[in-house]
Amino acid sequence: MSATLAPVSHEPASKARLRLWLRVLKVNRLVEPVLRERLRAEFGTTLPRFDVMAALNRFPEGLKMSQLSGVLRVSNGNVTGIVDRLEAEELAERAPLPGDRRAAVVRLTDKGRAEFARQAEAHKSWIDALLSDFSAEEAREIGALLGAMTDPATRTGD
Amino acid sequence: MSATLAPVSHEPASKARLRLWLRVLKVNRLVEPVLRERLRAEFGTTLPRFDVMAALNRFPEGLKMSQLSGVLRVSNGNVTGIVDRLEAEELAERAPLPGDRRAAVVRLTDKGRAEFARQAEAHKSWIDALLSDFSAEEAREIGALLGAMTDPATRTGD
Repeated sequence: MSATLAPVSHEPASKARLRLWLRVLKVNRLVEPVLRERLRAEFGTTLPRFDVMAALNRFPEGLKMSQLSGVLRVSNGNVTGIVDRLEAEELAERAPLPGDRRAAVVRLTDKGRAEFARQAEAHKSWIDALLSDFSAEEAREIGALLGAMTDPATRTGD
Repeated sequence: MSATLAPVSHEPASKARLRLWLRVLKVNRLVEPVLRERLRAEFGTTLPRFDVMAALNRFPEGLKMSQLSGVLRVSNGNVTGIVDRLEAEELAERAPLPGDRRAAVVRLTDKGRAEFARQAEAHKSWIDALLSDFSAEEAREIGALLGAMTDPATRTGD
Protein backbone atom coordinates (compact mmCIF):
# COMPACT_ATOMS: atom_id res chain seq x y z
CA MET A 1 0.00 0.00 0.00
CA SER A 2 2.52 2.58 1.12
CA ALA A 3 5.92 3.23 -0.38
CA THR A 4 8.66 1.28 1.34
CA LEU A 5 12.30 2.12 1.71
CA ALA A 6 14.85 -0.06 -0.01
CA PRO A 7 16.20 -2.65 2.40
CA VAL A 8 19.64 -1.86 3.77
CA SER A 9 20.57 -5.53 3.68
CA HIS A 10 19.83 -8.48 1.46
CA GLU A 11 19.34 -10.62 4.53
CA PRO A 12 15.73 -11.75 4.83
CA ALA A 13 13.64 -10.54 7.77
CA SER A 14 13.29 -14.12 8.98
CA LYS A 15 17.03 -14.38 9.49
CA ALA A 16 17.21 -11.07 11.37
CA ARG A 17 14.33 -12.15 13.61
CA LEU A 18 15.93 -15.50 14.31
CA ARG A 19 19.15 -13.75 15.30
CA LEU A 20 17.19 -11.38 17.52
CA TRP A 21 15.53 -14.35 19.22
CA LEU A 22 18.86 -16.13 19.78
CA ARG A 23 20.27 -12.96 21.33
CA VAL A 24 17.27 -12.57 23.62
CA LEU A 25 17.92 -16.14 24.74
CA LYS A 26 21.58 -15.39 25.24
CA VAL A 27 20.88 -12.38 27.49
CA ASN A 28 18.44 -14.53 29.43
CA ARG A 29 20.97 -17.33 29.77
CA LEU A 30 23.67 -14.96 31.01
CA VAL A 31 21.48 -13.20 33.56
CA GLU A 32 18.92 -15.63 34.94
CA PRO A 33 21.24 -18.19 36.58
CA VAL A 34 23.05 -15.37 38.39
CA LEU A 35 19.76 -13.99 39.68
CA ARG A 36 18.66 -17.44 40.87
CA GLU A 37 21.91 -18.00 42.71
CA ARG A 38 21.94 -14.58 44.38
CA LEU A 39 18.30 -14.75 45.43
CA ARG A 40 19.09 -18.10 47.03
CA ALA A 41 22.34 -17.02 48.68
CA GLU A 42 21.29 -13.57 49.87
CA PHE A 43 17.58 -13.95 50.57
CA GLY A 44 16.97 -17.70 50.75
CA THR A 45 14.35 -17.32 48.04
CA THR A 46 13.71 -18.45 44.49
CA LEU A 47 12.99 -16.68 41.22
CA PRO A 48 9.36 -17.92 41.00
CA ARG A 49 8.80 -16.77 44.57
CA PHE A 50 10.39 -13.38 43.79
CA ASP A 51 8.11 -13.11 40.75
CA VAL A 52 5.02 -13.88 42.84
CA MET A 53 5.96 -11.22 45.37
CA ALA A 54 6.68 -8.73 42.56
CA ALA A 55 3.24 -9.35 41.08
CA LEU A 56 1.55 -8.97 44.45
CA ASN A 57 3.55 -5.82 45.11
CA ARG A 58 2.17 -4.24 41.94
CA PHE A 59 -1.40 -4.89 43.10
CA PRO A 60 -1.74 -3.75 46.73
CA GLU A 61 -5.46 -4.59 46.70
CA GLY A 62 -4.58 -8.20 46.00
CA LEU A 63 -4.85 -10.68 43.15
CA LYS A 64 -6.96 -13.76 42.67
CA MET A 65 -4.98 -16.96 42.31
CA SER A 66 -5.97 -17.17 38.64
CA GLN A 67 -4.65 -13.65 38.01
CA LEU A 68 -1.43 -14.50 39.81
CA SER A 69 -0.82 -17.56 37.63
CA GLY A 70 -1.25 -15.36 34.57
CA VAL A 71 1.56 -12.98 35.42
CA LEU A 72 4.23 -15.56 36.06
CA ARG A 73 7.04 -16.39 33.76
CA VAL A 74 7.67 -19.51 31.76
CA SER A 75 9.45 -21.83 34.11
CA ASN A 76 7.40 -20.95 37.14
CA GLY A 77 6.94 -23.13 40.11
CA ASN A 78 3.71 -24.10 41.76
CA VAL A 79 1.87 -20.85 42.50
CA THR A 80 -0.33 -22.40 45.17
CA GLY A 81 2.66 -23.87 46.98
CA ILE A 82 4.50 -20.55 46.82
CA VAL A 83 1.51 -18.65 48.23
CA ASP A 84 1.10 -21.25 50.97
CA ARG A 85 4.69 -20.73 52.06
CA LEU A 86 4.46 -16.94 51.87
CA GLU A 87 1.35 -17.14 54.05
CA ALA A 88 3.06 -19.44 56.56
CA GLU A 89 5.87 -16.88 56.84
CA GLU A 90 3.33 -14.05 57.22
CA LEU A 91 4.64 -12.38 54.05
CA ALA A 92 1.28 -12.74 52.28
CA GLU A 93 -2.31 -13.31 53.33
CA ARG A 94 -5.51 -14.53 51.76
CA ALA A 95 -8.42 -12.13 52.18
CA PRO A 96 -12.01 -12.09 50.98
CA LEU A 97 -12.64 -9.96 47.91
CA PRO A 98 -14.65 -6.86 48.90
CA GLY A 99 -18.14 -7.25 47.49
CA ASP A 100 -17.78 -10.98 46.83
CA ARG A 101 -17.09 -12.92 49.99
CA ARG A 102 -16.90 -16.22 48.12
CA ALA A 103 -13.87 -15.05 46.15
CA ALA A 104 -10.46 -14.63 47.76
CA VAL A 105 -7.48 -12.54 46.86
CA VAL A 106 -3.86 -12.88 47.91
CA ARG A 107 -1.97 -9.80 48.99
CA LEU A 108 1.31 -8.94 50.65
CA THR A 109 1.34 -8.15 54.35
CA ASP A 110 3.28 -5.13 55.59
CA LYS A 111 6.07 -7.53 56.49
CA GLY A 112 5.93 -8.99 52.98
CA ARG A 113 6.03 -5.55 51.41
CA ALA A 114 9.10 -4.58 53.45
CA GLU A 115 10.87 -7.84 52.60
CA PHE A 116 10.08 -7.47 48.91
CA ALA A 117 11.40 -3.89 48.92
CA ARG A 118 14.78 -5.19 50.17
CA GLN A 119 14.87 -7.92 47.54
CA ALA A 120 13.77 -5.63 44.72
CA GLU A 121 16.45 -3.09 45.57
CA ALA A 122 19.14 -5.77 45.44
CA HIS A 123 17.66 -7.25 42.26
CA LYS A 124 17.76 -3.85 40.57
CA SER A 125 21.41 -3.31 41.45
CA TRP A 126 22.34 -6.82 40.23
CA ILE A 127 20.61 -6.15 36.90
CA ASP A 128 22.37 -2.79 36.68
CA ALA A 129 25.75 -4.51 36.97
CA LEU A 130 24.88 -7.55 34.85
CA LEU A 131 23.67 -5.33 31.99
CA SER A 132 26.45 -2.75 32.35
CA ASP A 133 27.61 -3.50 28.80
CA PHE A 134 24.60 -1.41 27.76
CA SER A 135 24.79 2.34 28.29
CA ALA A 136 21.71 4.01 29.74
CA GLU A 137 20.90 5.26 26.27
CA GLU A 138 21.29 1.84 24.65
CA ALA A 139 19.19 0.23 27.37
CA ARG A 140 16.46 2.80 26.80
CA GLU A 141 16.60 2.28 23.06
CA ILE A 142 16.50 -1.52 23.15
CA GLY A 143 13.85 -1.47 25.86
CA ALA A 144 11.66 0.85 23.80
CA LEU A 145 12.08 -1.26 20.66
CA LEU A 146 11.37 -4.55 22.47
CA GLY A 147 8.39 -2.94 24.19
CA ALA A 148 6.62 -2.83 20.84
CA MET A 149 6.06 -6.55 20.88
CA THR A 150 2.45 -7.64 21.29
CA ASP A 151 1.15 -10.99 22.47
CA PRO A 152 1.00 -13.30 19.43
CA ALA A 153 -1.98 -15.07 20.98
CA THR A 154 -4.11 -11.92 20.82
CA ARG A 155 -2.89 -10.54 17.51
CA THR A 156 -5.39 -10.24 14.71
CA GLY A 157 -4.96 -9.91 11.01
CA ASP A 158 -2.07 -12.21 10.31
CA MET B 1 38.18 11.13 32.87
CA SER B 2 36.69 11.94 29.50
CA ALA B 3 34.03 14.50 28.76
CA THR B 4 30.57 12.98 28.80
CA LEU B 5 27.50 14.07 26.96
CA ALA B 6 24.58 15.38 28.96
CA PRO B 7 22.06 12.61 29.57
CA VAL B 8 18.98 12.80 27.39
CA SER B 9 16.88 11.66 30.31
CA HIS B 10 16.96 12.10 34.06
CA GLU B 11 16.14 8.44 34.46
CA PRO B 12 19.08 6.56 35.99
CA ALA B 13 20.83 3.87 33.96
CA SER B 14 19.76 1.27 36.53
CA LYS B 15 16.12 1.95 35.77
CA ALA B 16 16.63 1.72 32.01
CA ARG B 17 18.52 -1.56 32.43
CA LEU B 18 15.82 -3.00 34.66
CA ARG B 19 13.20 -2.12 32.06
CA LEU B 20 15.35 -3.70 29.36
CA TRP B 21 15.59 -6.88 31.44
CA LEU B 22 11.84 -7.00 32.04
CA ARG B 23 11.24 -6.62 28.30
CA VAL B 24 13.69 -9.39 27.47
CA LEU B 25 11.71 -11.57 29.88
CA LYS B 26 8.46 -10.51 28.26
CA VAL B 27 9.63 -11.46 24.77
CA ASN B 28 10.82 -14.77 26.18
CA ARG B 29 7.50 -15.36 27.92
CA LEU B 30 5.53 -14.61 24.75
CA VAL B 31 7.63 -16.81 22.48
CA GLU B 32 8.95 -19.78 24.43
CA PRO B 33 5.64 -21.47 25.38
CA VAL B 34 4.53 -21.31 21.74
CA LEU B 35 7.76 -22.93 20.59
CA ARG B 36 7.43 -25.68 23.20
CA GLU B 37 3.87 -26.45 22.17
CA ARG B 38 4.62 -26.51 18.44
CA LEU B 39 7.74 -28.64 18.81
CA ARG B 40 5.61 -31.10 20.76
CA ALA B 41 2.62 -31.04 18.42
CA GLU B 42 4.46 -31.02 15.10
CA PHE B 43 7.63 -32.96 15.84
CA GLY B 44 6.97 -34.82 19.08
CA THR B 45 10.05 -33.17 20.55
CA THR B 46 10.98 -30.77 23.33
CA LEU B 47 12.86 -27.49 23.51
CA PRO B 48 15.85 -28.97 25.40
CA ARG B 49 16.04 -31.76 22.82
CA PHE B 50 15.82 -29.23 19.97
CA ASP B 51 18.62 -27.23 21.63
CA VAL B 52 20.82 -30.33 21.91
CA MET B 53 20.29 -31.14 18.23
CA ALA B 54 20.99 -27.50 17.29
CA ALA B 55 24.27 -27.59 19.20
CA LEU B 56 25.29 -30.89 17.60
CA ASN B 57 24.31 -29.55 14.20
CA ARG B 58 26.72 -26.64 14.62
CA PHE B 59 29.60 -29.05 15.33
CA PRO B 60 29.56 -31.80 12.70
CA GLU B 61 32.74 -33.31 14.17
CA GLY B 62 30.90 -33.87 17.43
CA LEU B 63 30.92 -32.51 20.97
CA LYS B 64 31.99 -34.01 24.25
CA MET B 65 29.19 -34.35 26.78
CA SER B 66 30.78 -31.61 28.88
CA GLN B 67 30.81 -29.23 25.90
CA LEU B 68 27.21 -30.08 25.14
CA SER B 69 26.09 -29.21 28.65
CA GLY B 70 27.81 -25.86 28.31
CA VAL B 71 25.82 -24.72 25.30
CA LEU B 72 22.41 -25.44 26.74
CA ARG B 73 20.00 -22.87 28.02
CA VAL B 74 18.73 -22.23 31.50
CA SER B 75 15.84 -24.59 32.00
CA ASN B 76 17.42 -27.50 30.21
CA GLY B 77 16.55 -31.07 30.76
CA ASN B 78 18.93 -33.89 31.45
CA VAL B 79 21.56 -33.83 28.69
CA THR B 80 22.56 -37.45 29.20
CA GLY B 81 18.94 -38.62 29.00
CA ILE B 82 18.36 -36.58 25.87
CA VAL B 83 21.46 -37.98 24.16
CA ASP B 84 20.46 -41.52 25.18
CA ARG B 85 17.10 -41.09 23.49
CA LEU B 86 18.58 -39.48 20.37
CA GLU B 87 20.95 -42.43 20.14
CA ALA B 88 18.13 -44.95 20.58
CA GLU B 89 16.29 -43.27 17.70
CA GLU B 90 19.46 -43.28 15.59
CA LEU B 91 19.44 -39.47 15.39
CA ALA B 92 22.78 -39.17 17.20
CA GLU B 93 25.71 -41.46 17.90
CA ARG B 94 28.59 -41.65 20.31
CA ALA B 95 31.97 -41.99 18.64
CA PRO B 96 35.56 -42.11 19.90
CA LEU B 97 37.43 -38.83 19.63
CA PRO B 98 40.10 -39.08 16.91
CA GLY B 99 43.48 -39.15 18.61
CA ASP B 100 42.09 -39.96 22.06
CA ARG B 101 40.20 -43.22 22.09
CA ARG B 102 39.33 -42.86 25.77
CA ALA B 103 37.27 -39.73 25.08
CA ALA B 104 33.94 -39.87 23.26
CA VAL B 105 32.03 -37.27 21.32
CA VAL B 106 28.37 -37.16 20.40
CA ARG B 107 27.40 -36.22 16.87
CA LEU B 108 24.31 -36.26 14.70
CA THR B 109 23.80 -39.12 12.27
CA ASP B 110 22.75 -38.33 8.70
CA LYS B 111 19.21 -39.16 9.78
CA GLY B 112 19.54 -36.78 12.72
CA ARG B 113 20.88 -34.02 10.50
CA ALA B 114 17.95 -34.39 8.10
CA GLU B 115 15.44 -34.41 10.95
CA PHE B 116 17.00 -31.35 12.54
CA ALA B 117 16.94 -29.51 9.19
CA ARG B 118 13.15 -30.01 9.04
CA GLN B 119 12.69 -28.82 12.62
CA ALA B 120 15.01 -25.83 12.20
CA GLU B 121 13.17 -24.68 9.08
CA ALA B 122 9.84 -24.78 10.92
CA HIS B 123 11.36 -23.11 13.99
CA LYS B 124 12.70 -20.28 11.85
CA SER B 125 9.31 -19.65 10.26
CA TRP B 126 7.58 -19.71 13.66
CA ILE B 127 10.03 -17.14 15.02
CA ASP B 128 9.54 -15.04 11.87
CA ALA B 129 5.79 -14.89 12.54
CA LEU B 130 6.04 -14.56 16.34
CA LEU B 131 8.44 -11.61 16.02
CA SER B 132 6.62 -10.00 13.09
CA ASP B 133 6.01 -6.88 15.20
CA PHE B 134 9.67 -6.12 14.48
CA SER B 135 10.61 -5.02 10.99
CA ALA B 136 13.71 -6.58 9.47
CA GLU B 137 15.55 -3.37 10.19
CA GLU B 138 14.40 -3.22 13.82
CA ALA B 139 15.27 -6.87 14.33
CA ARG B 140 18.76 -6.24 12.95
CA GLU B 141 19.18 -3.17 15.13
CA ILE B 142 18.04 -4.81 18.37
CA GLY B 143 19.98 -7.97 17.57
CA ALA B 144 23.15 -5.98 16.98
CA LEU B 145 22.71 -4.00 20.20
CA LEU B 146 21.95 -7.08 22.31
CA GLY B 147 24.89 -8.87 20.71
CA ALA B 148 27.23 -6.53 22.55
CA MET B 149 26.55 -8.25 25.84
CA THR B 150 29.46 -10.19 27.27
CA ASP B 151 29.36 -12.96 29.86
CA PRO B 152 29.34 -11.30 33.30
CA ALA B 153 31.25 -14.31 34.67
CA THR B 154 34.26 -13.59 32.48
CA ARG B 155 34.23 -9.81 32.62
CA THR B 156 37.17 -8.09 34.19
CA GLY B 157 37.62 -4.65 35.58
CA ASP B 158 34.29 -3.95 37.19
